[in-house]
Amino acid sequence: MELPVSLDPSGRQSLQRQLFEQLRGLILGAGLRPGTPVPPSRLLARQLGVSRNTVVLAYERLSAEGYLQTRSALGTYVSHDLPDSSLRVDADGIADRMSAGRRFPRSSLAFRGRAQAVVSPGKLEFDFWLGRLDPTLFPLSTWRRLVNQVLERADSGFTEYRDPTGLFELRAAIADHLRPARGMKVESDQIIVVAGAQQGLNLIARLLLREGTRVVTENPSYQGAAYLFESYRAEVIPVPVDENGLCVDALPPAGAALVHLTPSHQYPMGFTLSLERRMRLLDWARQTGAYVVEDDYDSDFRYRGSPLMALMGLDQAESVIYLGTFSKSVGTGLRVGYLVLPRHLIEPARTAKALLDNGHAWLDQAVLAEFIASGAYDTHLRRIRRTYLERRDCLIDSLRNHFGNVMLTGTDSGMHLAWHLPAGFPSAAELQALAAERAVGVYSLRSGAAHDFGDCAYSDKTLLFGYSSLDEARIRAGIERVADALREWKRTRCTSARPARTCADR
Amino acid sequence: MELPVSLDPSGRQSLQRQLFEQLRGLILGAGLRPGTPVPPSRLLARQLGVSRNTVVLAYERLSAEGYLQTRSALGTYVSHDLPDSSLRVDADGIADRMSAGRRFPRSSLAFRGRAQAVVSPGKLEFDFWLGRLDPTLFPLSTWRRLVNQVLERADSGFTEYRDPTGLFELRAAIADHLRPARGMKVESDQIIVVAGAQQGLNLIARLLLREGTRVVTENPSYQGAAYLFESYRAEVIPVPVDENGLCVDALPPAGAALVHLTPSHQYPMGFTLSLERRMRLLDWARQTGAYVVEDDYDSDFRYRGSPLMALMGLDQAESVIYLGTFSKSVGTGLRVGYLVLPRHLIEPARTAKALLDNGHAWLDQAVLAEFIASGAYDTHLRRIRRTYLERRDCLIDSLRNHFGNVMLTGTDSGMHLAWHLPAGFPSAAELQALAAERAVGVYSLRSGAAHDFGDCAYSDKTLLFGYSSLDEARIRAGIERVADALREWKRTRCTSARPARTCADR
Repeated sequence: MELPVSLDPSGRQSLQRQLFEQLRGLILGAGLRPGTPVPPSRLLARQLGVSRNTVVLAYERLSAEGYLQTRSALGTYVSHDLPDSSLRVDADGIADRMSAGRRFPRSSLAFRGRAQAVVSPGKLEFDFWLGRLDPTLFPLSTWRRLVNQVLERADSGFTEYRDPTGLFELRAAIADHLRPARGMKVESDQIIVVAGAQQGLNLIARLLLREGTRVVTENPSYQGAAYLFESYRAEVIPVPVDENGLCVDALPPAGAALVHLTPSHQYPMGFTLSLERRMRLLDWARQTGAYVVEDDYDSDFRYRGSPLMALMGLDQAESVIYLGTFSKSVGTGLRVGYLVLPRHLIEPARTAKALLDNGHAWLDQAVLAEFIASGAYDTHLRRIRRTYLERRDCLIDSLRNHFGNVMLTGTDSGMHLAWHLPAGFPSAAELQALAAERAVGVYSLRSGAAHDFGDCAYSDKTLLFGYSSLDEARIRAGIERVADALREWKRTRCTSARPARTCADR
Repeated sequence: MELPVSLDPSGRQSLQRQLFEQLRGLILGAGLRPGTPVPPSRLLARQLGVSRNTVVLAYERLSAEGYLQTRSALGTYVSHDLPDSSLRVDADGIADRMSAGRRFPRSSLAFRGRAQAVVSPGKLEFDFWLGRLDPTLFPLSTWRRLVNQVLERADSGFTEYRDPTGLFELRAAIADHLRPARGMKVESDQIIVVAGAQQGLNLIARLLLREGTRVVTENPSYQGAAYLFESYRAEVIPVPVDENGLCVDALPPAGAALVHLTPSHQYPMGFTLSLERRMRLLDWARQTGAYVVEDDYDSDFRYRGSPLMALMGLDQAESVIYLGTFSKSVGTGLRVGYLVLPRHLIEPARTAKALLDNGHAWLDQAVLAEFIASGAYDTHLRRIRRTYLERRDCLIDSLRNHFGNVMLTGTDSGMHLAWHLPAGFPSAAELQALAAERAVGVYSLRSGAAHDFGDCAYSDKTLLFGYSSLDEARIRAGIERVADALREWKRTRCTSARPARTCADR
């Protein structure tokens, strides 16, 4: 071990004193921890280019003051019991020179932001957390095979900087996948590989936002988007959603730089933006000069009808930026998503991405490219789509069994659905709390990875259920417990509201 | 394949007409490329929930107009020769509705930035590009073994969101490495894993910069840092460097949010910041409230003397943010670097990192953690340090052989050195151009991944040589060619400067 010590032969202190001070500084600063052996004096002397005697004398003084100890079997090491005097240091010692400034004025941070919730807040046994994957469905054996195959021909994969927009093979595979699947005319050079959808949003924010820029989001919206725009000090304008998706009539007539929306499966309500609104939204974008950020986070899972043509497929005015992710379809541990950009944004986005992080890690990109191009991705999608469909059906079935003709939205696709609570039920937040007492995680709009801006029609009456990570037995057991919680709530409420009368429910 | 088509039974157009228009839109928009087979009518009818006849009639019209073709062996597919009329579409067709807006007003981008150069601009046979790794030195077999070991116990590694600040095991391994190696008192919770040094800088910029914030950089400086700060519309204040590193006396007396510097091996000049200046810099930071960003990009390679104690190890006023990277010591294809933060910045940085990208990919982190913790990292460092030392010696030797007593800086550590050209030599840019004609890449301050702010004392007289990626034979051959180029230049200059006289050189 080489110690980070540097002596200055022309300094006003002796070499021995300098060495003593610096070693003491290391020990006090915990760079050298108690019990750590120090190098033999001969080695340290050689490293520093000083006489061995200088080191021996410095060690002796450190030992005399209690910083070092020597045992014949162990050699010399840092004392476990540092001397009291270690807290007092010489007037011209390093530690003292610095410690005077421990509390000092510091200019305030420029950054202002809230942390979004992407992991479930609790450790609940039956957790219907949103957008969560089932680890047992990850295609591990295929992945391992591809990893080894890619490592066989690693060449300079680990050692060279590459195109900051992503590995060519991956961008080509994504473009090939998107054309038929989403009806988009897209070439590989329009694609920028990003570290998940959140980084895609961040890159868009870097391109389009300054302080005070007006940004439209859905209300309720994806929390990670709303908090991000807020952190750029943009003026966020929430626009309501209804069962046909974003209320296009409520868009501001001018002045917005972009609108962020989730047209395939509105997050969190699950609505699909109607074709008629798609066309009007694109008209609005063309007229106002705003960009449309099409966040297509879970469109790989569609259970009924056809996939809708992406906004980007309909658009011919270069207004749409498409955002996709592999966090839901393969695994969030890959941290791979992508942007599809109109041509005029490619160059600025490439520059912004390079300044952001010089591009994505090589191995995961190379494996994912092979995974898609080999057809394994399609096979995997079919398999998990079938499983998620069964889980969705099981969830709907369980809810109907316990609560009758429940009103649900978002069931046609995705990994979660929304239950619109009927009259006479507790609020969504109350029901969430009651369920949590029984180790069941269900989520109101404010507690999921969603954000509502305060005057959202659905907030108190909607409960969100992610079903992708739970097997059917757990789904049934979880909903059973929610039903128990509700029965208990009705009984208590009945008792406490009319304590003196006989309760009709009994 | 499911086509992204969606029919509206309550629309004013017939289902057949809707289907025709949407399929034509797909073909024109290249969502369906020439030669692509369309689904059998029965399948598409089932997908759309319409009668088979509707699909047959739509296909017939598309065939009649030349969009589809049928061959008995191939089925029905998109025509290779689309009809001329495909460019004209009905007044109420989708394509036409949109195409009117192809050129339209678009608000200007918020982003303004220049792309930094991280890869060598040319493909030269003898390329002394800076900070470049030798692919043959990557520890591939160890890495493959660790990858497979980590995949054995992947569990939810690929499928769960994790701490946005990085995998605990990796942060702990980094902290354990830094304490003795750099004399820093650091705990794992102070570490944020980032996607390379550039992302670390970006995270710092997000935390500390707004438009107009004053930022100090070295002059000359690392290009990626200068361009990044510029892209945040900060006011960048260049401060000169000399052979003792950053000229601390030239720091602005107040008002800077941060100073970015490379104290171990100044980028690009190779100077080391003296201990005396380190102390004065920290005093300045404490007094002005500025942060010191210690960019320690290549300190793993030290060939002479001791590693200097990191600024963060000397600081006791929580002024220093330390930036490290594995891009030089393991491989840039990993895209892993890290920040070490003063405690009061941990929470805001965690939030900013989560809004930036929810954290780094799992597999590379898990493997790297194992690589460090197992001791393989230390072994690897020793091995490449020895190789780089041999290459450095070979480069110095070659330069001396050809050019005599050359003046070099930055030789004590790192992966590159700077040659201060003597009087009577061409400018650095000229020599670079002459060498490039002979397939040799050597770099002036303006062409390397460096940036000078226009009044830098070294710009025209300094040539940079990265030696880490070239073996000794190439180093010798490359320098030989530089010498040839210079001889040729002297001859030509002599001839053209005094054409009528006898040249003394002859």
